[in-house]
Amino acid sequence: MQLNIRKGKKEDCSAVLELIRELAVYEKEPDAVDVDLTQLEEDGFGEDPAYDLLVGEIDGEIKGCAIYYQKYSTWKGRALYLEDLIVTESARGKGLGLALFKAVIQEAYDRAAGRMEWQVLDWNKPAIDFYKDFGASIEDEWLNGRFSKEQIAKICEA
Amino acid sequence: MQLNIRKGKKEDCSAVLELIRELAVYEKEPDAVDVDLTQLEEDGFGEDPAYDLLVGEIDGEIKGCAIYYQKYSTWKGRALYLEDLIVTESARGKGLGLALFKAVIQEAYDRAAGRMEWQVLDWNKPAIDFYKDFGASIEDEWLNGRFSKEQIAKICEA
Repeated sequence: MQLNIRKGKKEDCSAVLELIRELAVYEKEPDAVDVDLTQLEEDGFGEDPAYDLLVGEIDGEIKGCAIYYQKYSTWKGRALYLEDLIVTESARGKGLGLALFKAVIQEAYDRAAGRMEWQVLDWNKPAIDFYKDFGASIEDEWLNGRFSKEQIAKICEA
Repeated sequence: MQLNIRKGKKEDCSAVLELIRELAVYEKEPDAVDVDLTQLEEDGFGEDPAYDLLVGEIDGEIKGCAIYYQKYSTWKGRALYLEDLIVTESARGKGLGLALFKAVIQEAYDRAAGRMEWQVLDWNKPAIDFYKDFGASIEDEWLNGRFSKEQIAKICEA
C-alpha cells in the first residue's frame, strides 16, 4: 500500500466533490452542497483562487483531501483555516488523514501562519480525539453566526 | 450627532488597533493581540491585503469598525467572514454597530457571497440577541480547533 500526498489539480475536482458530498452526508446535511463541479474548478483553479487543495492517494487513487485558505486574525495576523479534512470511509484507519493533517500543518509552518484553525462537530468524538492527540486546543465557547445567501438578499432587498 | 460608515484607509489603522485591543479586553484575553500597527497597516493596505475594513464615525471620529475577509465554503462557495465588529464602549447604543453590521451585509450582497459567517462568545448575550433580531442562525454544535504559531513550529521542527 502506497500513501501519497500532493497538491491538488483542476482534474482532481471531480473526486474532491465526491468527498465533499460524502462529508456532508456524514455531517447530516446531505442537501447542503450547492457547489457543483464547474464552480469548484473555477473557485480553486481559475483566475482568483479562493482555496488551496491537497489530495491524498492510496495506490494512485484519490481517497482523501484537505481544503484550506488564508484567514485573518486581528490578534495573530495571517492565519491558515482548514475548511475540510476528508478521508473516504472505506480508506480510513490507514494513516491518510494523519498524513493530510500533517501536510496542512507543514503548509501553515511554511507560510509562517500566525495560527491554524478549523472546526469540528461536537459529536464527532473520533475527530476530536484525533486533534487532541496532536495537542490542539478544542474550544466550545464560541457560537457560529450565519446568514444564508437568501437571508442576505432578503435584508438588502427589503 | 452624525453617523458615518466608510471604507477604511491605512491612516485609520491606529484607531482600529485601539478598538481591537479594547475588544480583546472585553473578551477576557487582554494579552492576546500580537499584531502591531505596522503589521495591521501592511496586512490591510500592503501589496496583498488580507482583510477589508469599514470604519464607523460619530461626528467625524472613529468609534467603531468591522473587519472581514473572503472565506471559502465547500458547500456554498465564496463567502464573507466577519472577523470583528467593534464599537467602543462609550459610543454604544447610538446605532453605530447596527449601521456597521448592515454595511457588511450589504458588502456580502454586492459580492454575491454564498453565505456570511461570524462567531460570537456564548456568554455575550447582548451580541447574540442583536444577531438573532436580524434572523441570523446562531449554532452551538461546532467546536473551534486551533494550533498556535508555537505549536505549529513544535510539530514541524520535531
